[in-house]
Amino acid sequence: MPGCEVDGMEQPRPLDALNRARDKRVMVELKNGRQLSGVLKAFDIHINVVLDDAEETENGQLKRKLGNVFIRGDTIIMINPS
Amino acid sequence: MPGCEVDGMEQPRPLDALNRARDKRVMVELKNGRQLSGVLKAFDIHINVVLDDAEETENGQLKRKLGNVFIRGDTIIMINPS
Amino acid sequence: MPGCEVDGMEQPRPLDALNRARDKRVMVELKNGRQLSGVLKAFDIHINVVLDDAEETENGQLKRKLGNVFIRGDTIIMINPS
Amino acid sequence: MPGCEVDGMEQPRPLDALNRARDKRVMVELKNGRQLSGVLKAFDIHINVVLDDAEETENGQLKRKLGNVFIRGDTIIMINPS
Amino acid sequence: MPGCEVDGMEQPRPLDALNRARDKRVMVELKNGRQLSGVLKAFDIHINVVLDDAEETENGQLKRKLGNVFIRGDTIIMINPS
Amino acid sequence: MPGCEVDGMEQPRPLDALNRARDKRVMVELKNGRQLSGVLKAFDIHINVVLDDAEETENGQLKRKLGNVFIRGDTIIMINPS
Amino acid sequence: MPGCEVDGMEQPRPLDALNRARDKRVMVELKNGRQLSGVLKAFDIHINVVLDDAEETENGQLKRKLGNVFIRGDTIIMINPS
Repeated sequence: MPGCEVDGMEQPRPLDALNRARDKRVMVELKNGRQLSGVLKAFDIHINVVLDDAEETENGQLKRKLGNVFIRGDTIIMINPS
Repeated sequence: MPGCEVDGMEQPRPLDALNRARDKRVMVELKNGRQLSGVLKAFDIHINVVLDDAEETENGQLKRKLGNVFIRGDTIIMINPS
Repeated sequence: MPGCEVDGMEQPRPLDALNRARDKRVMVELKNGRQLSGVLKAFDIHINVVLDDAEETENGQLKRKLGNVFIRGDTIIMINPS
Repeated sequence: MPGCEVDGMEQPRPLDALNRARDKRVMVELKNGRQLSGVLKAFDIHINVVLDDAEETENGQLKRKLGNVFIRGDTIIMINPS
Repeated sequence: MPGCEVDGMEQPRPLDALNRARDKRVMVELKNGRQLSGVLKAFDIHINVVLDDAEETENGQLKRKLGNVFIRGDTIIMINPS
Repeated sequence: MPGCEVDGMEQPRPLDALNRARDKRVMVELKNGRQLSGVLKAFDIHINVVLDDAEETENGQLKRKLGNVFIRGDTIIMINPS
Repeated sequence: MPGCEVDGMEQPRPLDALNRARDKRVMVELKNGRQLSGVLKAFDIHINVVLDDAEETENGQLKRKLGNVFIRGDTIIMINPS
């Protein structure tokens, strides 16, 4: 997934950052204030995301284990590779 | 439904995870805080979803049985195969 | 309306479930918490819906009769064939 | 505006119901809880609507007369031909 | 801007009503409950609107004069030619 | 950016008003109730806007200086050339 | 990324301002009231943004360090190059 060209130079794109985070642990913050951590397995242009080994955390404390989970992109505020 | 190609390698896509969950029991969380569990029978790119044998649960307790139900994708936060 | 092909097999789609519910009584839940029951006469890809013989119910009690009603899709959470 | 074909049969579409209500009195419910009644003069695929002789009502009581009014579709919950 | 054809007859469209209100005074109601009156100078398919000689009113009382103002369409509930 | 043609006459479009306000001071009102004033340097069809020499004001009082700022269009209610 | 032409003259576009801010420190304000500062590494037309060396601040005080972070565009109010 190469970046787009601007004045003959390639510029990085936001999805490149997600691509680098693939198979690594990320923290996903949702619009309802919840936080999920997990291994980023897949994403698409809508920022729909699949995490493996996912856990919901609250103030850094484990709240529940979710395992494999599909998250709809429009509920996501940010994704933070750790 | 094969993944998209990136640098000659196929990458998994979020909908692949839903496809693997087809005919299996999933937990669907809605933006209004409700939780539905049921057997995933169908989904589309909008994440519209059809569950069979669906039940609404509250804090893990059965609240009511819904049977077959169509859920509009934009009300969904996450889908969690069990 | 046949399903989409995946690996040579046809997969069911969410709108197929609505198509099977045509001319049957359904319960429609709206984002504002209201519930409408009626006979499903028409729907489209936006999940705009037309019900005949529609009634608004509250906690299972009849609140008012609406007759024929057009419901805008983006206000719908779920559609539940009875 | 004929219906779409499904398995060789024409199926009714939601906008057909609005078309039948043209030049008739309808009740329009908005997402902010308000109710407008008026004669349906025009609509489009976004469910933008024009009413003539429109009145805002509250619990069935006339609140104010609006005459001709354009209503943006994304504010509408339902349209109820009387 | 002629209407669309239905069964060989032209049907009026919602934007026709706005076109007739061009250069006339209209009342615009916003989703945040505010009301703006002004002379409708321009609109587009998103219902972005430009008013001249605009005033914000509250319960029919002048609150402040705005002069020329661009209003983003997705904040508008209704437009009411006077 | 000429207007669109209607019945052989050119009609003004909303973005024309923004184009006339380019390099002039405007007041931008946001959906969260905040007000930004600044010199309009750029805009696009999403009503994404760039202001120079921007200031946030509250009830007409300067709250803070922002300098150059990019504002996402979907957060804007109205733009008011002064 | 050159500007668009209007009457033979090139006009600046909002994304040009973001392009100039690339690799510089920016303040990003989110719709939920939070503020993130960081080095702008990437953005796209949805205003999805990637920041490096990101920090969340509250009233100008450091709240937590985030490092590299992907922010979904629809959660952003404004981006303010410092």
